[in-house]
Amino acid sequence: MADDALVLGLDVGGTTIKGEITDAAGRVLAVGTVATPQGEAAFEAMGALGDQLLSELTAELRSRVGRAAVVLPGIVDTVRSIAVFSSNVGWRDVKVGDRFSDRWGIPVLIEHDVAVAGWAEWRVGAGRGYDNVCVVILGTGISGTLSVGGRLLRSSYGQVGEYGHIPVRADGLPCLCGNTGCVETIASGASIARAYTRRSGREISGAAEVFALVDTDPDATAVLADAVDALADGLIGIVHAACPELVILGGGLAGAGAALTEPLHRAIADRLRLVPAPQVVLGEFGARAGLAGAALFARQGALE
Amino acid sequence: MADDALVLGLDVGGTTIKGEITDAAGRVLAVGTVATPQGEAAFEAMGALGDQLLSELTAELRSRVGRAAVVLPGIVDTVRSIAVFSSNVGWRDVKVGDRFSDRWGIPVLIEHDVAVAGWAEWRVGAGRGYDNVCVVILGTGISGTLSVGGRLLRSSYGQVGEYGHIPVRADGLPCLCGNTGCVETIASGASIARAYTRRSGREISGAAEVFALVDTDPDATAVLADAVDALADGLIGIVHAACPELVILGGGLAGAGAALTEPLHRAIADRLRLVPAPQVVLGEFGARAGLAGAALFARQGALE
Repeated sequence: MADDALVLGLDVGGTTIKGEITDAAGRVLAVGTVATPQGEAAFEAMGALGDQLLSELTAELRSRVGRAAVVLPGIVDTVRSIAVFSSNVGWRDVKVGDRFSDRWGIPVLIEHDVAVAGWAEWRVGAGRGYDNVCVVILGTGISGTLSVGGRLLRSSYGQVGEYGHIPVRADGLPCLCGNTGCVETIASGASIARAYTRRSGREISGAAEVFALVDTDPDATAVLADAVDALADGLIGIVHAACPELVILGGGLAGAGAALTEPLHRAIADRLRLVPAPQVVLGEFGARAGLAGAALFARQGALE
Repeated sequence: MADDALVLGLDVGGTTIKGEITDAAGRVLAVGTVATPQGEAAFEAMGALGDQLLSELTAELRSRVGRAAVVLPGIVDTVRSIAVFSSNVGWRDVKVGDRFSDRWGIPVLIEHDVAVAGWAEWRVGAGRGYDNVCVVILGTGISGTLSVGGRLLRSSYGQVGEYGHIPVRADGLPCLCGNTGCVETIASGASIARAYTRRSGREISGAAEVFALVDTDPDATAVLADAVDALADGLIGIVHAACPELVILGGGLAGAGAALTEPLHRAIADRLRLVPAPQVVLGEFGARAGLAGAALFARQGALE
C-alpha cells in the first residue's frame, strides 16, 4: 500500500461500533460511532458507518483509502471469513465474506478484535521492542494474545488467547460459556462490579468505581484481591509454558492502573520458582486497542 | 550436510548418558551407554563416550560423521552454550562451549533434552503432519514443548514448556523447585510411586507398576486419577491460550498407554466449553525421544 494511503478501521463491540479513517501517521480524518444492533442487522450498521465515514472525505482523500479492516468480537474464522459465534451480538455462523469490499470498493480484511488489539499493543504499544509478550485485554470479557520468540501465536485448530475461560475455581460461579469458575466470572469488569455489590450491598456503576475505592474500602480491596488471584491462577500455566517477559493489561478495565498491575505482578511472582517472573504493565491504547489494531492491520495487511 | 553423512547424538540424563551414531535412515552404527557422574565429571564422561562410539567406526565411516548434538537436562542456555542448572546432575553455570567440537573434530550443537525430544515427537513422531501440538515428556520430571501454527515456541526470556512446575494444589506437597503443589509433585513417575506407597503401605518398583495395577487395585486407580487431574489442571491454561489439536504424552512414563491417554483426554474435555478439546496420544519414541531428537537435531542443524 502507498505511504500516503488511508485506511478505514471498524471495531465492532457488543454495545457500539466504532470507526475511523486514518493516515500513516495515525491522524484521524473521519470518526464515528453507532449502537450495535443485535444479530444480522449489525452488519448493515457496519456497512452504513463505513459509507458515512467515506462520504465525509473529499474526493481526493476518498481515492486514497486503500484498505479497510473490520474487527469482530467472539469467535472469528478469518480463513472462511465467518463470524462463528458472539454471545454479545447474537451471531452464529454469519458469513462476512465480500459484503463490505463490494460496498466500499476497497479490499476489506476481517479479524478478531482481541487478536488485533493484542497485536497492536505488542507491536506499537506497551510491548514495542519485546519478543515475548502476553497481552490480556480486560473488559466485558477477558481474552488476549501471546507472542513468543517475536511471533504472534495463531492456531489453525481454534481461537487462541481465551484466558477468560480458563477454569480456576472448582466451586466457582457459572460462566456464560457453560462452565463454572472461569477467570471471567471473577476478574471481568461486570464480575468485579457484581462481586462488590454482593459483598457490600451497595450498587455501583461499574468496576472502575471498585478500583477507585480500593485504598479505603475493605470490600473493594477484597474483591480486587480475588480478581488478581483469579488472573494469576489463569495465567500461571501460560507463564510456565511460554515464558513471557511482559504481561500487558489492555482494554477498558486496564484504566485501574497500578491498583491492578502491581498486585498481579506480585501474585504471579509468588506462584513461580523456576521460571522468571514477567513484568506487568498497562496497555497504551486502553479501550481504543481494537480500533488502533484495526487501523494497523488494514495498513500492514497481516498480523506480523 | 551431505545425504550420506552420519551424526553422533548424546542424550545426557540424570542416571545415564546414551549415545548413538546414526545414518540418514536412522540406522544405528554405534551405540553406548555410561552412568552419569555428578557435576563437572559428567562432561568428561560425555567426551569419552563420544570418543568410544567414533572409534568403533571404520575410517571411512568415521570420515562421514558430519555433526554431533549433545542434549542436556535442566535449564540450558543454548545461545551462550551453558548448562545453567540441573538438580539431577548437579550443574550450575557449566560452560559447554567448544569442548566437544575440539575433541571430536566436528561441529557440536547443544540443546535442551526435552526441547529436542518434543520437537522430534512433533516433527517425525506422533505429531507428524499436525501444526498445533503440545508434547508433554513424562519421566523423572515433567516438561515439554508447544508448537503453534507450525512453529516450535522458544522464548528468548527463559526456558519454555515447564509444565511440571505449574502449581495446581494450594495445599500440595513440596517440590524440588521450592514451590508447593507443582504438577510434578503429583504426576511424575517418582510422585506416582510415592503416592501409591503412602496410600497402600506397599513398596513398589515404580510408576509402571501402579499403571499395571490400575484395573484391579483401588489405590492404584485413585493415585492415577490424582495424577491425571493434576496434568489436566496444569495443561488447561495452555489449551485455552494456544489451542493445540494434539497432546502427545512422551518419555518413559508414557508406556502406561491408554490408562493415561483416555482419562487425560476426558479430564481436559471436562474442563473445556469454548475451546475444542485436543486429542491425547502416546509419543512414538518413549524414553528414546531425547536420543531420536538429538540425532534429528544434529542432522538438521536447527529445531524447525
